[in-house]
Amino acid sequence: MFFASDNSGPVHPTVLEALATANGGHAMGYGNDDLTAQVADQIRDLFEAPEAAVFLVTTGTAANALALSTLVQPYDAVFCTPFGHIHLDEGNAPEFFTSGAKLSLVPGDDRMKPDALADRIAFLHGLGLGGAVPAAVSLTQMTEMGNLYALDDLRAVCAMASDHGLTVHLDGARFANACVTLGCTPAEMTWKAGVDVAVFGGTKNGLMGAEAVILFDPARARDFELRRKRGAHLLSKHRYLAAQMAAYLQDDLWLSLARRANANCARLVQGLDAIEGFERVNDALGNVAFYNVPRGLHHRLKATEAVYALWEGAETGPEDETVMLRFVCDWSLKAAQIDGFLDLAGRV
Amino acid sequence: MFFASDNSGPVHPTVLEALATANGGHAMGYGNDDLTAQVADQIRDLFEAPEAAVFLVTTGTAANALALSTLVQPYDAVFCTPFGHIHLDEGNAPEFFTSGAKLSLVPGDDRMKPDALADRIAFLHGLGLGGAVPAAVSLTQMTEMGNLYALDDLRAVCAMASDHGLTVHLDGARFANACVTLGCTPAEMTWKAGVDVAVFGGTKNGLMGAEAVILFDPARARDFELRRKRGAHLLSKHRYLAAQMAAYLQDDLWLSLARRANANCARLVQGLDAIEGFERVNDALGNVAFYNVPRGLHHRLKATEAVYALWEGAETGPEDETVMLRFVCDWSLKAAQIDGFLDLAGRV
Amino acid sequence: MFFASDNSGPVHPTVLEALATANGGHAMGYGNDDLTAQVADQIRDLFEAPEAAVFLVTTGTAANALALSTLVQPYDAVFCTPFGHIHLDEGNAPEFFTSGAKLSLVPGDDRMKPDALADRIAFLHGLGLGGAVPAAVSLTQMTEMGNLYALDDLRAVCAMASDHGLTVHLDGARFANACVTLGCTPAEMTWKAGVDVAVFGGTKNGLMGAEAVILFDPARARDFELRRKRGAHLLSKHRYLAAQMAAYLQDDLWLSLARRANANCARLVQGLDAIEGFERVNDALGNVAFYNVPRGLHHRLKATEAVYALWEGAETGPEDETVMLRFVCDWSLKAAQIDGFLDLAGRV
Amino acid sequence: MFFASDNSGPVHPTVLEALATANGGHAMGYGNDDLTAQVADQIRDLFEAPEAAVFLVTTGTAANALALSTLVQPYDAVFCTPFGHIHLDEGNAPEFFTSGAKLSLVPGDDRMKPDALADRIAFLHGLGLGGAVPAAVSLTQMTEMGNLYALDDLRAVCAMASDHGLTVHLDGARFANACVTLGCTPAEMTWKAGVDVAVFGGTKNGLMGAEAVILFDPARARDFELRRKRGAHLLSKHRYLAAQMAAYLQDDLWLSLARRANANCARLVQGLDAIEGFERVNDALGNVAFYNVPRGLHHRLKATEAVYALWEGAETGPEDETVMLRFVCDWSLKAAQIDGFLDLAGRV
Repeated sequence: MFFASDNSGPVHPTVLEALATANGGHAMGYGNDDLTAQVADQIRDLFEAPEAAVFLVTTGTAANALALSTLVQPYDAVFCTPFGHIHLDEGNAPEFFTSGAKLSLVPGDDRMKPDALADRIAFLHGLGLGGAVPAAVSLTQMTEMGNLYALDDLRAVCAMASDHGLTVHLDGARFANACVTLGCTPAEMTWKAGVDVAVFGGTKNGLMGAEAVILFDPARARDFELRRKRGAHLLSKHRYLAAQMAAYLQDDLWLSLARRANANCARLVQGLDAIEGFERVNDALGNVAFYNVPRGLHHRLKATEAVYALWEGAETGPEDETVMLRFVCDWSLKAAQIDGFLDLAGRV
Repeated sequence: MFFASDNSGPVHPTVLEALATANGGHAMGYGNDDLTAQVADQIRDLFEAPEAAVFLVTTGTAANALALSTLVQPYDAVFCTPFGHIHLDEGNAPEFFTSGAKLSLVPGDDRMKPDALADRIAFLHGLGLGGAVPAAVSLTQMTEMGNLYALDDLRAVCAMASDHGLTVHLDGARFANACVTLGCTPAEMTWKAGVDVAVFGGTKNGLMGAEAVILFDPARARDFELRRKRGAHLLSKHRYLAAQMAAYLQDDLWLSLARRANANCARLVQGLDAIEGFERVNDALGNVAFYNVPRGLHHRLKATEAVYALWEGAETGPEDETVMLRFVCDWSLKAAQIDGFLDLAGRV
Repeated sequence: MFFASDNSGPVHPTVLEALATANGGHAMGYGNDDLTAQVADQIRDLFEAPEAAVFLVTTGTAANALALSTLVQPYDAVFCTPFGHIHLDEGNAPEFFTSGAKLSLVPGDDRMKPDALADRIAFLHGLGLGGAVPAAVSLTQMTEMGNLYALDDLRAVCAMASDHGLTVHLDGARFANACVTLGCTPAEMTWKAGVDVAVFGGTKNGLMGAEAVILFDPARARDFELRRKRGAHLLSKHRYLAAQMAAYLQDDLWLSLARRANANCARLVQGLDAIEGFERVNDALGNVAFYNVPRGLHHRLKATEAVYALWEGAETGPEDETVMLRFVCDWSLKAAQIDGFLDLAGRV
Repeated sequence: MFFASDNSGPVHPTVLEALATANGGHAMGYGNDDLTAQVADQIRDLFEAPEAAVFLVTTGTAANALALSTLVQPYDAVFCTPFGHIHLDEGNAPEFFTSGAKLSLVPGDDRMKPDALADRIAFLHGLGLGGAVPAAVSLTQMTEMGNLYALDDLRAVCAMASDHGLTVHLDGARFANACVTLGCTPAEMTWKAGVDVAVFGGTKNGLMGAEAVILFDPARARDFELRRKRGAHLLSKHRYLAAQMAAYLQDDLWLSLARRANANCARLVQGLDAIEGFERVNDALGNVAFYNVPRGLHHRLKATEAVYALWEGAETGPEDETVMLRFVCDWSLKAAQIDGFLDLAGRV
């Protein structure tokens, strides 16, 4: 009954096998091994981007912050929503890796609207030399609130960015979950929509700690490579990072795991929606569901073995006050576990 | 008819005389001259802070950014209002000098409210390790919108900061204008209210380019000194910076210039308030007035020799749409100039 | 016949088993799992340092750069030898993580001498405000040139640092190899000798990618923790990092692997020393040997299947000119492989 | 008898007059005034560089650090000599403004030799991804040791830089003194020799605090402008900075002041060379002379009213041990003062 985070789930067994397979004999370090080259080719194929540069790192924060650092100067602004993981959850890593660029918030919810972006760009331009320079947009698909940009919406916001000379970064920590729900290709969700640099996340979807950064303009490759080294994110025994990603790509494991996670979430949502007191907040079309509940219900639920996150509101306060809960379903959850939780939630 | 900025006005003649006086013979560089020591003592006296460390720099942005850099770590958050000069007008200098700390906006207007600050602190703490760590508050007196914190309000927000273990920086670019209006002492507006580091601005009030940073806790002095050097803000011929500040303090020139600027603004406001189409936006108790006007009026006014800033809204658009104008009065404006402008504004 | 780097060897099978064992069910992320807590306790025991703070990261560069960032300010200097890995091989990561502190080179060879350090400290102090402020010393044990500080020498340089108010960082990428040769305890080689922060390396000694940073003063813990997050080096699925380190500590695997590596090197050195044209450059008491050879010999050797590094001198040039080669022995090399290489080296 | 620094001398009276002249009425701030535009044009003319971008700042350190920040990336290396002002005297400002680039020392004396540069470039390239990337060379004319590059030597080292794809920065804190001695034009000493960005110093030569940065490739202008703002080095009342530079250029004041300073130094050197115990160390063809003297002589000299710098060696020690003294002559010294000092030096 573990819904705290998709980071809490286990690694898929195939990944461990891939590590063992990669463990034979000696291999050149620092990404100069054959497996790393193979995986980069596979990702280029998957994204239909034969010219793209591909790099692996161990954390999503590293992937995002390094990606942004190749897109902006220190005096620039990166636009994101007030819900942006890069803004709320990365410990100032984006500011660190960009040497102090500003994250500028585009008002609205977790799905950035083109007009709101345009307003914010105009506002910063109006500030003149003292304002941070509009330079890049960072979007998250699916979003931190578990919602999805429809492809048309994604294209529209990317087009607005491009119209103003801005580049686009896509935080794809839950890239696979979005692909599954939208039924689209990686290319459609990235460069075909106007994304310049995408993060293809694996850690939240069954890997041990591996994220791919795909730079569709290979001119950015050398800068990324040197910044990754400077950020201490170039693994010496790089083959084990590549092995994880190889397993992820093999037989579309990334898709099948996301399908399982999404299906788990759908099962959960179907159940919770029907329970008195649970008011769903988001679309929950991926693997993350948010619910408003009375604090009393939260307290009773928390007293069980269920593990999840109190997302908004304090632990203490009136029992009938509304608080928001987050439930994340990873691939490894069993239907019986979900049903057990639903049973429990219906009874507390 | 120049209301564009208090940076546009001339230097007071006394300041030029002080430069000439300081120009005799040789003096040790880098602040090791007698005049620098004397000025620091005078400022300590003025602020009734015998232990304070005092440093001079040439720009308000340097003063603010260096001050903040002694208060926070790179993973920290500095709270300011959405109108903060440090956020909108300093070209990411705060992020630069703090090595990437985050400016976290406290919702509301240009005068930060204690409860809104507390909410924001709680929000960041709720984010855990990934959230920027609440560490400092930056307030501006008088504010960027030309408003004033009453002393009680200033104390209240400083107390809230202190209750949560945060330090307080005061951006005093228009420190003197605030002192004049409040009729308070520098000590009352700073350390007695709970301010840890204050900027005592001179550049907007008749100096050539000189701001004093006052660190009420002398334990911060060495860090500031080394960061000033590293920021390339330690002048070699420091005596000329000291000379400006000496002139500023002599016979309370800082107060008399601010009185003149405020009186100029009061005269302007009295006139504009009475003119059809001018709707005042701020208190204008210092030397800055904001007015909403129909764009057509702005266009007609702009066509005269009057110089001021279009603050909000685009240059082009419907003539009857409202835009916001900013008028800043410096000490050097003559009553006749203001009256001439008022006459003009009443006729266009 | 792979002597290119200890990063090129495989992971010890026990480590893969530990990953599999750790893979059961859900666990809290970001280091809040039981295994992480257990490993920290084990390291505290091993280092006889019950108060120490312990953190794991994936790369030696991250370990070093983060460690240094907790010891110095941006205007400070870190002293190292001209051979320092932090200076030559980490892509400016130390400057990045310290926000621009300077690595100041202490003249001499790869083992820093106390008097040379004292001279350099005095030189920087003599520069006044413009010079970087002496703040920390970084030593490597065993050194980048494969040499060892005797414990007395280590103590002497730490004492000189301490006498001048400097802290000491120990880069222990090959910590285990040094312990084995010196026959000393981890405590003797670190805090008992005067080290403030030590890196206990695992990656070069059979792990996949895991290094422990041990801060003997726990007051530095919170700063390190927040800087690790900001550097994007906090793994979400942290249990797999902990599992590697747990395997490393189990039954002193770290010592037995280092013993094997050192023994492999001793076998290699015994052989090469006896071969015409191979002139040993370093002590080679750990797992790294350097040899001067005529370029012609290098060319003939390189044409075989042997893999090693040309360390000094160009690939092309007169055949009789001397170049320097580096041979690194990891734990996984077999005696037969070494003997095969020796046979080959004797014949080319 | 003040030979401590050219920063200790007074400002030339013409400069104060220029400030007064600039002080009439209102002017747009932040460099948008007429005088700033005029001065930029004059400098372009002086340097025969009609396309160059010109910026003014208040300190030499700001000029150097900002210039370097437009030439290199954070993972790059800037080559300088072990005597570089940027390395020894700027409090890590170059590292700060470049976001952590490394200053890599080219062995030798204060005049960099092309071959030594080439060796160092090759060395860094040999380090691969872990080494800082060779990107720029920083030269000082005249050097920190008071010596001059002959134009041919300057061209040779610039050519070597260019051959390896590196750009060249010229620290011209004593640019005028060098021009006077070499009898060359500013263009000959900069872009015609291969310099990409030059600092045309005024502060050490009679200005209050004004340095011009000349970017011969105007494509770098916008980056510089935004970095200057971010560094808090854009003065709001910029006309007073421009006024200083206008005075400097008027009737070649910059040349006449440097001629006076150099002549003062020549007079000093002629005298000291003839005095027992004074052994000259440098060419002293500009305005700075270095002498080795027995410590006892230094102690006796110091006990007089003479002010100069002990450059190398400790204050205390054997009286017959050699220490190095630095004497700097500014334009304002009178022949009688120099003769008085010589008389004194001959008697102590």
